[in-house]
Amino acid sequence: MLLTDIYQSLKKDLKQIEYRLAETIHTDEKELLHSSRHLLDAGGKRMRPLFVLLAGHFGEYRLSELEKVAVALELIHMATLVHDDVIDDAETRRGRKTVKAEWDNQVAMYTGDFIFARALTEVAGLSDPRVHQILAKALVFLVRGEIDQIHDLYQPDQSLRRYLHRIKRKTALLMAISCQLGGIVSGASESAVRALYQYGYSVGMAFQMTDDVLDLTGDEKVLGKPAGSDLLQGNVTLPVIHTLENGTPVEQQMIRSYLESRGTEGDLPQILKMVCQSEGIPYTLALSKRYLNRALTALEKLPDTYERESLRFIGEFIVTRSF
Amino acid sequence: MLLTDIYQSLKKDLKQIEYRLAETIHTDEKELLHSSRHLLDAGGKRMRPLFVLLAGHFGEYRLSELEKVAVALELIHMATLVHDDVIDDAETRRGRKTVKAEWDNQVAMYTGDFIFARALTEVAGLSDPRVHQILAKALVFLVRGEIDQIHDLYQPDQSLRRYLHRIKRKTALLMAISCQLGGIVSGASESAVRALYQYGYSVGMAFQMTDDVLDLTGDEKVLGKPAGSDLLQGNVTLPVIHTLENGTPVEQQMIRSYLESRGTEGDLPQILKMVCQSEGIPYTLALSKRYLNRALTALEKLPDTYERESLRFIGEFIVTRSF
Repeated sequence: MLLTDIYQSLKKDLKQIEYRLAETIHTDEKELLHSSRHLLDAGGKRMRPLFVLLAGHFGEYRLSELEKVAVALELIHMATLVHDDVIDDAETRRGRKTVKAEWDNQVAMYTGDFIFARALTEVAGLSDPRVHQILAKALVFLVRGEIDQIHDLYQPDQSLRRYLHRIKRKTALLMAISCQLGGIVSGASESAVRALYQYGYSVGMAFQMTDDVLDLTGDEKVLGKPAGSDLLQGNVTLPVIHTLENGTPVEQQMIRSYLESRGTEGDLPQILKMVCQSEGIPYTLALSKRYLNRALTALEKLPDTYERESLRFIGEFIVTRSF
Repeated sequence: MLLTDIYQSLKKDLKQIEYRLAETIHTDEKELLHSSRHLLDAGGKRMRPLFVLLAGHFGEYRLSELEKVAVALELIHMATLVHDDVIDDAETRRGRKTVKAEWDNQVAMYTGDFIFARALTEVAGLSDPRVHQILAKALVFLVRGEIDQIHDLYQPDQSLRRYLHRIKRKTALLMAISCQLGGIVSGASESAVRALYQYGYSVGMAFQMTDDVLDLTGDEKVLGKPAGSDLLQGNVTLPVIHTLENGTPVEQQMIRSYLESRGTEGDLPQILKMVCQSEGIPYTLALSKRYLNRALTALEKLPDTYERESLRFIGEFIVTRSF
């Protein structure tokens, strides 16, 4: 099995979702359309729609319902991305802000609000009250995750627990409910829905951990962003937290003074090199592997189908990928 | 009848809504709680809850359902206010931005997102799919209204039509659906729901027009903000639009050069004085009165009750108030 095989098997339905995504964000307001399209075209792996569709096979697969969930979740994901950009902009352009940049931030904020409102329009078409309840609850946690992230920027004293909490809210939860809601709108059994949620949650955690490692060790050309961009933006991820707790006193001090000065002091390339060679990397990857195993255990509760095999494969891929 | 009589008659239920509002935004995240509480305590007239409760009397009045709608709509109103603040901050502090101010903007954005997510949690408890559809659709327009407002800042060439369009999205729609949804969740008749919507829409339009006049002519101490703050922020309202079209060439040029320079050229106090003495004020008030009359006509389709009388009174008050 290859990842492309999985996409291929769902090609028609994913294409339909892509079409609906474009249709949903259409507006006669040019600037808004432009910024929304930009986001849509930036694409990404459409993991949330993929999970929704795969999960939908454990009940009665109805594209009309699954499509609404998939479109809504992908739009919500996009809306959080664009609101994150408002922050990143604010960070990187600090002190050198032009009116144009400011204007862009405003538009970014409202683009997020707009895409979000469109997501709700999709969800409004679904009658199962559980869907509304799960989504609304998840949204609260999602926003809390964004706020956690602001608060934790440049904080040298972060526990593993705090990190796990943050990436749960930031990443894992949306993947978990993608699987869960895909199951629910297909009328999958309660135990299947639970297993799907558990799978999505664990895979999401594993995904974010691998992502955090790749940000440090990955190839700039493959990643599409400079290596170490997390630390550059003050985002303290698990490999760094581990080094802060277990590195030599000199290593700890290097990172600490970089963070405490909010990135103004210290040699970032040197710190990155040091973290890359630290135990923080294998430690994070091992933890990621443990979450993957939990995800695979959850899958065992589902019937042995092509879609279960696909979910297994995606999990394995997420943890072993190099991009 | 006095306005306080109306509030008095709904005192217990409004208090319950106030309690739920505070409960809903509770979070253990201190900064978020602080900023949300600040917004909640800033208060305002709670017009949306008032409309929801009054509208609820035209069907089977059930506080448990009405409360969810009222809380959700007031939270949505608050969320848009805080996102508006992000913009105002950006405008007024332009060029003099501190890290602290920047941070506040981020927090303001996420506070809005958080309050909004909480609003959805309230709505998720309502089973009528029409509620979800109406709300989702309104949200899209609401955001469009915000974007319109950004685009129209400092624009000297605005038609009456454009202005009406903008204030519909910005203000009238949320009042319209407050009345509409109050009717719907109480199981009011279709014709009653239509009348309630029409009333709320027309009253909302009249309200915004009066508000725009008061911003120019009102007493700073009563308004709680300096007179002319709209024009100061580049918000071109109907009295100004009217003067731009019907004033003397000198008057037109004064406003035009102020706007075209984005407020950097021209004597604002002098412009304000001129607009206050212009035909733009009586013209806007007359149009506001026309909308009020439409609202009163809509009320005639409802049974003659204390609540209908209350709605009539609120409408009259809105157009004749001085604050």
